[in-house]
Amino acid sequence: MKTKSRFLRAPVEPFTVEPDASASDLLERMERISFQGRNLATARRIWEKMLASDCTIFFGMAGALSAGGLRMIVAYLIANRYIDCLVSTGANLYHDLHETRGRRHYLGSPHEDDAALQAEHIDRVYDTYAREDEFCDNDEWIAAFALTLERRPYTSREFLYRLGEYLWKETGQDGILTAAYRANLPIFCPAIADSSIGMGLSQARHRDSGAGLIDVIGDIVESANLVIRHPRTASVVLGGGTPKNFINQASVQAEFFDDRIGGHRYALQIVTDVPHFGGASGSSLEEARSWGKLATDAEQVTVHADATLAMPILVTALAASARETLAGRKPLRFDLAGATMGVNGRPFPQARFEAR
Amino acid sequence: MKTKSRFLRAPVEPFTVEPDASASDLLERMERISFQGRNLATARRIWEKMLASDCTIFFGMAGALSAGGLRMIVAYLIANRYIDCLVSTGANLYHDLHETRGRRHYLGSPHEDDAALQAEHIDRVYDTYAREDEFCDNDEWIAAFALTLERRPYTSREFLYRLGEYLWKETGQDGILTAAYRANLPIFCPAIADSSIGMGLSQARHRDSGAGLIDVIGDIVESANLVIRHPRTASVVLGGGTPKNFINQASVQAEFFDDRIGGHRYALQIVTDVPHFGGASGSSLEEARSWGKLATDAEQVTVHADATLAMPILVTALAASARETLAGRKPLRFDLAGATMGVNGRPFPQARFEAR
Amino acid sequence: MKTKSRFLRAPVEPFTVEPDASASDLLERMERISFQGRNLATARRIWEKMLASDCTIFFGMAGALSAGGLRMIVAYLIANRYIDCLVSTGANLYHDLHETRGRRHYLGSPHEDDAALQAEHIDRVYDTYAREDEFCDNDEWIAAFALTLERRPYTSREFLYRLGEYLWKETGQDGILTAAYRANLPIFCPAIADSSIGMGLSQARHRDSGAGLIDVIGDIVESANLVIRHPRTASVVLGGGTPKNFINQASVQAEFFDDRIGGHRYALQIVTDVPHFGGASGSSLEEARSWGKLATDAEQVTVHADATLAMPILVTALAASARETLAGRKPLRFDLAGATMGVNGRPFPQARFEAR
Amino acid sequence: MKTKSRFLRAPVEPFTVEPDASASDLLERMERISFQGRNLATARRIWEKMLASDCTIFFGMAGALSAGGLRMIVAYLIANRYIDCLVSTGANLYHDLHETRGRRHYLGSPHEDDAALQAEHIDRVYDTYAREDEFCDNDEWIAAFALTLERRPYTSREFLYRLGEYLWKETGQDGILTAAYRANLPIFCPAIADSSIGMGLSQARHRDSGAGLIDVIGDIVESANLVIRHPRTASVVLGGGTPKNFINQASVQAEFFDDRIGGHRYALQIVTDVPHFGGASGSSLEEARSWGKLATDAEQVTVHADATLAMPILVTALAASARETLAGRKPLRFDLAGATMGVNGRPFPQARFEAR
Repeated sequence: MKTKSRFLRAPVEPFTVEPDASASDLLERMERISFQGRNLATARRIWEKMLASDCTIFFGMAGALSAGGLRMIVAYLIANRYIDCLVSTGANLYHDLHETRGRRHYLGSPHEDDAALQAEHIDRVYDTYAREDEFCDNDEWIAAFALTLERRPYTSREFLYRLGEYLWKETGQDGILTAAYRANLPIFCPAIADSSIGMGLSQARHRDSGAGLIDVIGDIVESANLVIRHPRTASVVLGGGTPKNFINQASVQAEFFDDRIGGHRYALQIVTDVPHFGGASGSSLEEARSWGKLATDAEQVTVHADATLAMPILVTALAASARETLAGRKPLRFDLAGATMGVNGRPFPQARFEAR
Repeated sequence: MKTKSRFLRAPVEPFTVEPDASASDLLERMERISFQGRNLATARRIWEKMLASDCTIFFGMAGALSAGGLRMIVAYLIANRYIDCLVSTGANLYHDLHETRGRRHYLGSPHEDDAALQAEHIDRVYDTYAREDEFCDNDEWIAAFALTLERRPYTSREFLYRLGEYLWKETGQDGILTAAYRANLPIFCPAIADSSIGMGLSQARHRDSGAGLIDVIGDIVESANLVIRHPRTASVVLGGGTPKNFINQASVQAEFFDDRIGGHRYALQIVTDVPHFGGASGSSLEEARSWGKLATDAEQVTVHADATLAMPILVTALAASARETLAGRKPLRFDLAGATMGVNGRPFPQARFEAR
Repeated sequence: MKTKSRFLRAPVEPFTVEPDASASDLLERMERISFQGRNLATARRIWEKMLASDCTIFFGMAGALSAGGLRMIVAYLIANRYIDCLVSTGANLYHDLHETRGRRHYLGSPHEDDAALQAEHIDRVYDTYAREDEFCDNDEWIAAFALTLERRPYTSREFLYRLGEYLWKETGQDGILTAAYRANLPIFCPAIADSSIGMGLSQARHRDSGAGLIDVIGDIVESANLVIRHPRTASVVLGGGTPKNFINQASVQAEFFDDRIGGHRYALQIVTDVPHFGGASGSSLEEARSWGKLATDAEQVTVHADATLAMPILVTALAASARETLAGRKPLRFDLAGATMGVNGRPFPQARFEAR
Repeated sequence: MKTKSRFLRAPVEPFTVEPDASASDLLERMERISFQGRNLATARRIWEKMLASDCTIFFGMAGALSAGGLRMIVAYLIANRYIDCLVSTGANLYHDLHETRGRRHYLGSPHEDDAALQAEHIDRVYDTYAREDEFCDNDEWIAAFALTLERRPYTSREFLYRLGEYLWKETGQDGILTAAYRANLPIFCPAIADSSIGMGLSQARHRDSGAGLIDVIGDIVESANLVIRHPRTASVVLGGGTPKNFINQASVQAEFFDDRIGGHRYALQIVTDVPHFGGASGSSLEEARSWGKLATDAEQVTVHADATLAMPILVTALAASARETLAGRKPLRFDLAGATMGVNGRPFPQARFEAR
């Protein structure tokens, strides 16, 4: 008779086809298969735990996810407080603004003749197109908005709050920026200068030398204070990039001033990069432990998949299974209207880390 | 006013979260997003077209898909004739046999100490474990079965038919091999020598020098005759490897004897390899056109994803939307009991291509 | 007799082993093989053409290349003016500073126990380690430096020039920052807030609310003016990320003000990301044409490889074969000491694009 | 003062550019950098150790390496006995035969119009072309050769030995098959049915029903006997696929009959696949330990790179540094002329494993 092994506890259960299964059913059964299918199913469970525990959930997005059709998923996560703080590349916010303003991206082909596209001023993002003229118009719209602001430094967080407000008042349309404005949820964009939002700001500067001053160092202070104030954090990252690092940096910077910070309690990332080339986007969550970015006992999972494939099923399933948990959740209430943000009625210190 | 562009016909429609959505609903809405999400949705539509048109659907599988929990999906595709001919690596058939015989694979971790696993005779496939002793027992079971066969060459196709029959009679359990036996659907395994089934056969040889002779060249003849007899073909490939090439080779070899063969009419592949390293597994379906493996006007799509993530949702959605199409389908009827197979009551020529 | 095909001009020449071959010899023969080996060889030739034609060569670096041992290659490219303008992630400049200050990174293992590393305050980057305490010391050193600056906004370009100067005066050691200072070559870091340099700046802010103000929007203006002033540009990109996009953005932003700008004349990128997930890091140079980031007739090549493998051989070979070309090159002379930079004795306009 | 850490022994030494450096110099300095550059340098050292220790070195090749220009590197490794046994896909041997017969592959583009290529009967392998007519001619040549053989089963090993002999006598040209014939070095091709060599054999079958019988199960017996006879083995694998698995299988099968077999003592692989999708091609060498394919204390390295980039530099450097070691090496002498091979004058048992 076989001896039992501690390694052989739960068998793989082959996935069976049930034609009318919901997304939630699918993921439930995928918990018992292998490889990235299992990891996606695990991601749902870890996100549920984030929601059930008293965590501030940071959400990072890099890659052309807004242009690629995921912006209303992110808006849903914001509006329903599946997440508490968004860190994004500029492009995702810009493409969101583009659609909120009524413009569209278009289904295209990765094999089209790029010279022909260029001749028609059509910009290609793999299999997706957009009109360059509309982009130029957005840039000018952003410049015009920026000229309505005071001539002082704005953190990207404060700037984006004002941008969402302006956009909501002008369009009344749903999207990432407008959902965040309405839900009073902060957005950080540490690499705003590397995006068309930055280009719009530079055009404001061109018209008025005092305009378009973004204080990205101030964003570091605010993001770390957010961790210091509520040290239990979790991280959901799509695609790596600057958002992934900025979220981890907030934790590391906070720890510098407050040694009770112990890294994220939960972490999930959906990435297509791999660890073995050394880049931060593909870096493993194990490696993050060495830095203290992640608690040593944190539950975590990496899903190696394209977010356009993983997110529709993951968020649909989560929305079905986390209803009750979400109803019982008491998320942080943010005060975003001022130059320095606050949480639950208490403002952060100005231009300072909230050291113990 | 904007001029219309032929490039800008259909806009991206941002995916909206509906918690109770079925897999079929999800994929329907993913047709209007971008990147691999769109490609997976397109894969469902192309598979529907394969089923609706009078095509012989070849299905190739490489990668540890049986161990990884997908074997009952493949059994479902076979039993319901979503596919007509399976080409597989030996490992996938072997791991299927392992479970049909009542053994299991186990949920494990990619970070386990492999020396500790080795000490307990546990074999690891990324995050999945199996008992080596049970594998050894399978090998002997296969050897014993092989010794029951005649002392003559068997194509892998004939051998696997007999193996499925034997397995069904012994176990009465569902699985890939038993489903194919019961549905009378051919399985080819061109690289059978590179698998534990081959190892079992080599142990039969060890006991009897006349046993275990597999005529893999005969498989080339039969697979090409299958294409010559019914030149309208389609290809569904998971993971590349020898199955991908063998399916294309059947088409190319058939064309050598019959110039009416024009390559697959439809093709879909779910792969994680990429084209730019030159390997066949990652090669594009565009490249396949240059060889005539694919008809110049074939509809095709490549989904860059792990099959364990893509297949549960794809096949669930297909099972929901293709019910009627499937009911109207009149698949080929195979005669698999003899040394040379036949189709719809007409045997193939022995040891010869059915040249015009 | 065979007809000639326009497609079959140059045969593959199998690579032959010559034990004493130099890097330059190797790459010369690799021009006649296939796949990424050929692409690396082509990269050398395209870089030679950049040097031979009157181009401003932008060089972008993302990924842990300084920690990974490539910083003296970059310093060499700067000192010898193989490149004209560096765009970098903050981490690469920070890890360069770390070593220039006499600290080290260490050879490690990707399989080490991260909890054990964390317990010793050792940070892991895949297979490379560093002491966290030394990182904290760097942060304070940067903060102290930042407090020596005027209380006004600095572009990342001006800030990094001053940082290089300070570092050179304190250490007299070679490195990226010090080489750029000594060669008077501009460095842009659009995502400086997403790095430990940014963390150091935030600590300066903590001590003095007027310190650490980086004007990243000003960087957009300066980088575009650099293109407007000398519209012939070329792009060498390692690893994608913000540097890749920022270099392209400079061209696109410049074109907004001057329609003579036609995109980069030459482009080479060494990346590990792939196009089909839609992210900018992996985006193809074909796609860049649709945006006008690349001239329609630009010579370009993408090398799909890890930079730590590709760069040592590429730069060694280039250094051997481009000696004469380099000697005849007349690179731009930059004026970097002021708040607004200049080229060849002519300053850029302040806070404005140099519109025609 | 800092305490010493056992983790921080050897610092990264930044790579410095020396324009005239040889490949061997390059790799020597790359041992002290990070990521895949370091791994390639480590690969050279591990291969040197294989040569210095009394190991049978298995060499596996998958991917379009012959078409892609690496066939004379492999011929060099064979002729100079850097390796002892080749396991290959059929395609690599076929493309080698194609060139040894005086035909060529051609430098092409991955962006060419595949319909145009198809119209000219040109087959594309990513960026490399070949004439389909010449391929058809090869197939017939192989068929004609196969018809000269006896009407009995041949292992792929015996068949390929005879094929190499025939090719050498007809052409007198160097290549993989001819070098192996001349050096008396065995080649196994377990998936021969999945290649154009198999297609040629099937055409011999078409002409004579007794021809073209390849005993791939016999290959399993011979390859395991090779390990049983000389249990110290090493493995060098390019690209994964059936060769990678077959080499490991030989070790596992041997251990079944002889428990002194302990897995490969050294292993290096150059692959582009990754472990996390569960496929064998990308599987880690750590995982191989759990199976006993690799000795628990084996020295091993995985280089994540395209072989066309890695192999020219690796083999050039090895050829320079391993001269003396190679001169002192006493490789196995094979007897390949019979139906059953032998080693150092002692034939293997017929159709049996050499059980203790």
